Amino acid sequence: MTDPEGTPAPADMSAASAPDASGVTDPATAKPDRRPGGRTARIRAQVLAAVRAELAENGHEGLTMEGVATRAGVHRATVYRRWRDVGGLLVDVIDAAGEIDWQPPDTGSLHGDLTALNEEIQESLTVEPSFAVALMAASFHSERAARAQTRLWEDRYAQCAILVERAAERGELPPGQTDARRLLLAATAPVYHHLVLLRAAPDPRLPEQAATAAVLASAGGAFTARGEGSP
Amino acid sequence: MTDPEGTPAPADMSAASAPDASGVTDPATAKPDRRPGGRTARIRAQVLAAVRAELAENGHEGLTMEGVATRAGVHRATVYRRWRDVGGLLVDVIDAAGEIDWQPPDTGSLHGDLTALNEEIQESLTVEPSFAVALMAASFHSERAARAQTRLWEDRYAQCAILVERAAERGELPPGQTDARRLLLAATAPVYHHLVLLRAAPDPRLPEQAATAAVLASAGGAFTARGEGSP
Repeated sequence: MTDPEGTPAPADMSAASAPDASGVTDPATAKPDRRPGGRTARIRAQVLAAVRAELAENGHEGLTMEGVATRAGVHRATVYRRWRDVGGLLVDVIDAAGEIDWQPPDTGSLHGDLTALNEEIQESLTVEPSFAVALMAASFHSERAARAQTRLWEDRYAQCAILVERAAERGELPPGQTDARRLLLAATAPVYHHLVLLRAAPDPRLPEQAATAAVLASAGGAFTARGEGSP
Repeated sequence: MTDPEGTPAPADMSAASAPDASGVTDPATAKPDRRPGGRTARIRAQVLAAVRAELAENGHEGLTMEGVATRAGVHRATVYRRWRDVGGLLVDVIDAAGEIDWQPPDTGSLHGDLTALNEEIQESLTVEPSFAVALMAASFHSERAARAQTRLWEDRYAQCAILVERAAERGELPPGQTDARRLLLAATAPVYHHLVLLRAAPDPRLPEQAATAAVLASAGGAFTARGEGSP
């Protein structure tokens, strides 16, 4: 989840994305500058960078409109007008994570791809402070943030379906349609479970071990239609 | 996680478990009645039942010492003296869950046992309101609650090691020492991940599918020493 500098404002923010309160533009005549790198995009990037920093440092309980505005160096009135409340900031920072040009790994084998994916997940969950963990904590307390996070996860799993397609083309999967989401869930869930819910110490072997287990299960037909029911 | 009525007060509560403030006993001469079903145990059961109800209805953010005392019908002074603060209530309710006489399933096959375990987990996470989900949310915000929850999880995984031992005795696992925790993590993590972090709609087939995948992976040697490294 790198910085989404220059990404356009999301569509659902359009009603609240007038120029800021500095008086430089006249809202009655001027349109917000939506060019990539333009004023609107720049303010959004500043504000969302501040949200990420505040979340990682203080958690969502310490997130305030005032703290974000101060850290971003943006007028409070702008932050209130464009994001309305802390829930709006959370939703936008999650949406922004979905806008970055993330690409799933492509190592040449399903085992290598799933290991690389798990290592990326483990890194995002163990870096201190972890923005990813702060977002998960926030999603337990904001229904809007939870919905935004669910959309982001499902997008990511959909993007990763290519790993399974490539494995099938290489003949690494048994005949029959493999359910990509189920395979990806099996491969990645142990890493999240171990680190986020069990709060166990990071295990440097777990990303690879969980990938191995998912590959062996898929080779046994666990994620094809025939894999349902008793093995 | 059924009701722990009659369980003894945990050792670390001893300093704060004097008789309550009703004036019935004289703290200078009387000892708290610690017999199972005695006064101390009864008050703890009332208070913890109130904590569970408040957590499930209002989440940990709505949990207050006053609300718990009122619901339990116990003097506020007693609740403050014995549990000190909301963190103390959370820790004790998690510890109490670890004291119940829970037994892992014993269906006669590893696949059946893991499916039954996953169905129990799915039930605890999808019942409305879910005490289990409320506890997980709370553990993101209380370091003490998080540590108590980690202890509970690790106890449960240790208890479930018997499933793997029995499977090995039945010849259901390949030769070599199978790592019970890794197998159990692989079997159960998808259910937690799907419901708690992805917040996806419950899938009645997932408990069995996740069990199948773990059994196939274990048959392939994923959780033995030889299962490490590339498959």
